[in-house]
Amino acid sequence: MSEDFESAAAQAVARLTAHWAALESLALPVEPAHAPGATARALPASAPERGEPLERILADTWSVVVPGLVHWQHPAFLGYYPTANSPASVLAELVTAGLGVQGMMWSTSPAATELEQVVVDWLAKALGLPGSFLHSGGTGGGVIQDSASSAVLVAIVAALHRASGGGWRTDGVDGRYRAYCTGQANSCVPKAVRIAGLGEPVEIATTAGTGAMDPHALAARLDADRRAGLVPTVVVATSGTTATCAFDPLPAVADVCRRHGVWLHVDGAYAGSAALCPEHRAVNDGLEAADSYAVNAHKWMRTGTPCDVLWTSDRASLTEAMAIRPAFLHNPATESGAVVDFRDWQIPLGRPMRALKLWYVLRAHGLEGLRAAVRHDVGLAGRLARTIDREPGFHLVAHELGLVAFRYGTDGQTRALAARLAADTGLVCTPAEVEGRPLLRAVFGSPYATEATVDQVWAAIRRHAQAC
Amino acid sequence: MSEDFESAAAQAVARLTAHWAALESLALPVEPAHAPGATARALPASAPERGEPLERILADTWSVVVPGLVHWQHPAFLGYYPTANSPASVLAELVTAGLGVQGMMWSTSPAATELEQVVVDWLAKALGLPGSFLHSGGTGGGVIQDSASSAVLVAIVAALHRASGGGWRTDGVDGRYRAYCTGQANSCVPKAVRIAGLGEPVEIATTAGTGAMDPHALAARLDADRRAGLVPTVVVATSGTTATCAFDPLPAVADVCRRHGVWLHVDGAYAGSAALCPEHRAVNDGLEAADSYAVNAHKWMRTGTPCDVLWTSDRASLTEAMAIRPAFLHNPATESGAVVDFRDWQIPLGRPMRALKLWYVLRAHGLEGLRAAVRHDVGLAGRLARTIDREPGFHLVAHELGLVAFRYGTDGQTRALAARLAADTGLVCTPAEVEGRPLLRAVFGSPYATEATVDQVWAAIRRHAQAC
Repeated sequence: MSEDFESAAAQAVARLTAHWAALESLALPVEPAHAPGATARALPASAPERGEPLERILADTWSVVVPGLVHWQHPAFLGYYPTANSPASVLAELVTAGLGVQGMMWSTSPAATELEQVVVDWLAKALGLPGSFLHSGGTGGGVIQDSASSAVLVAIVAALHRASGGGWRTDGVDGRYRAYCTGQANSCVPKAVRIAGLGEPVEIATTAGTGAMDPHALAARLDADRRAGLVPTVVVATSGTTATCAFDPLPAVADVCRRHGVWLHVDGAYAGSAALCPEHRAVNDGLEAADSYAVNAHKWMRTGTPCDVLWTSDRASLTEAMAIRPAFLHNPATESGAVVDFRDWQIPLGRPMRALKLWYVLRAHGLEGLRAAVRHDVGLAGRLARTIDREPGFHLVAHELGLVAFRYGTDGQTRALAARLAADTGLVCTPAEVEGRPLLRAVFGSPYATEATVDQVWAAIRRHAQAC
Repeated sequence: MSEDFESAAAQAVARLTAHWAALESLALPVEPAHAPGATARALPASAPERGEPLERILADTWSVVVPGLVHWQHPAFLGYYPTANSPASVLAELVTAGLGVQGMMWSTSPAATELEQVVVDWLAKALGLPGSFLHSGGTGGGVIQDSASSAVLVAIVAALHRASGGGWRTDGVDGRYRAYCTGQANSCVPKAVRIAGLGEPVEIATTAGTGAMDPHALAARLDADRRAGLVPTVVVATSGTTATCAFDPLPAVADVCRRHGVWLHVDGAYAGSAALCPEHRAVNDGLEAADSYAVNAHKWMRTGTPCDVLWTSDRASLTEAMAIRPAFLHNPATESGAVVDFRDWQIPLGRPMRALKLWYVLRAHGLEGLRAAVRHDVGLAGRLARTIDREPGFHLVAHELGLVAFRYGTDGQTRALAARLAADTGLVCTPAEVEGRPLLRAVFGSPYATEATVDQVWAAIRRHAQAC
């Protein structure tokens, strides 16, 4: 099958580079006009009995699948958070898949584990993170997860372990443990709190008009819960909220957490990457007192999804919470205590070689290249923000890093505009809500976006607004 | 960067095909003689400032990383479960990475979701699973997860939702909910039970000498727990345990679960693939009464890791348990109710296009090809089992499908043999334990293994045994 593979892989590479060129030249729409079931109906009802040539499957990919995709690296994709990508990342995925190893323990592929330790340390240094998060620094370390969702769940579990003195491992949770965040935390936070068995998180108020956690409200609630016999366990703060890229005031929040002995997890999924640039290093303020921190390299660092990096300064709590050591995982390296086994840093037992992709991206782009990408996107967001700010009827709600949030006219008009934009296949722009009021947000991240893109997107938004 | 990519990708393909040929011809050892820190020391302490050519990074991959890997598709890799792979799977990973879409909702790439619905239905039909697990069948459906670990956690969460009448979502668990499995369940089961906040699972006894759950013991314990005011929530049964590929008696276990209204999750991570072959369809017996079932395509279906398929016959409980709908995820397709949003079927919010890989593998190999692979491995295991059974001093503990479990002499001698095999870089063979006694196990799965491999591996095992 190798010969068939070599020829099919060459075709795939050619198709992909043509695809990227089409994105760059706007030859493809950002999203399809797609009726539910259209792709499913184009496929047979059962798998074939006989094998088929790879080239035929590849051709069907472009005729059946690609027309039904939303192109997350398209210049006019300003929704959610654009998913990063680059040729270096794609090459690494090819090599990772081809080598096909499983790195659940050091012993099951020593180089996979050590490369990951080195590369997450590289990234921590590049972002200027506290030394307590480094593998080479003492009691901490980083690990690659699939998502900020999994990262926050792992952090919550570590916090439960620490808050319960380990008793949680055997007894489970019992209705006393509490998790805290604002209503502006990403939906993955309440979801993880729920999965960990804690029900709904306690919602901490934001300071009016900021979208950011009020540390006084946090302190008051922790005091009250403590007095009520509850166990405040974990506070999840956000550096860069989804709706408006608001920053919970980490130094003050961390201070409250420290006083109460509560685990502080910081979700920097999007904005954390900005710290690559010295001028944006303020996003790290207060992290030295955090117990864990997560950044999605797949959001703003040219690394394809999935690639979230979770760091902790309390490796022991995290790994003791997650560790499980059946006979079939016994091996001399683990027992020596001289190695890291990443199975104990994540929910799944098995894991692919996760670090190769980040290693390729950091080397191929260099820190200079990644900083330039951040600055480029910040520049485009600034252009859109200034335009919106000048336009009668529009209201600029927030402009932070590569994110712009805005309203048009009344709340009803903003909602009408959101509906019109959702129906327009020429751009993707996501709605959100702050303090009960709707807004629209645009986030820049496409490697192909230019000032001309901003102007085209703005023209479309303005045109739709006039009909609202 | 595209030109650099095309040339580097061509080199990567050539390197990978050479690598696979080296595995097939036994030109590489299965694992490295690797001292802790060897790879880390070969890497710089920081990421480079300037970008580097992809070809240099590729060359370093082979000089620095590959020598420190354990080769999971090597013919002499008989440990854990071999991680499946194939050129079709690798090609699909390349295309998936290159297209770089994110399929958290139908609307964020309709074709990604629909392809997944179709392909997991294909696989369900190919395995002869109950129609209740099909998307096209009514109240059920399948979804691709990263691992059997995540699959069982999702199932536990769905079970908690159903057992609590939904109250668990807001109130959390409270010490009354119980999960049940035997001591032979994979370690991912107690880990998932712990993460869900239930503490340790209740261990149900196995029928002596079988490694399989005693359904009478299960019934007695559920009765007792119910009388004690507890809430039996989920039973995790295993089709093919890790140590000896034992099968919990599903029809009897399902009967008990149904009587008690308890969610039954079945972990068929390894053995489930055998149902591709009509002669092994008995592994499915009893599944028609299961609420959820998981099979790892990355164990025995030529699909690279990660690729676990989780099916449920109770889609509503699963998605209601996991759903979360902040403003930024609102979209007309979701609100219409006409589409599936896989974010509500898994722990993370985001997800790559997971189905392309399984689609490529099913088509490239065809069901005939996948059945032939299962039969080949079963044949090799039979050859090793017969040899062990004939050899004085060795005791064949179990021989099921592609797995062989054995002891040598006393328990002390078996442990000594395990230690010698762990130190031998010429093969990988994993220890395990049943009823407190050690054993060794070998699982066949390498596409390159032949009868000659079996004989070479056996000669090595025999030689090491003579020194114990």
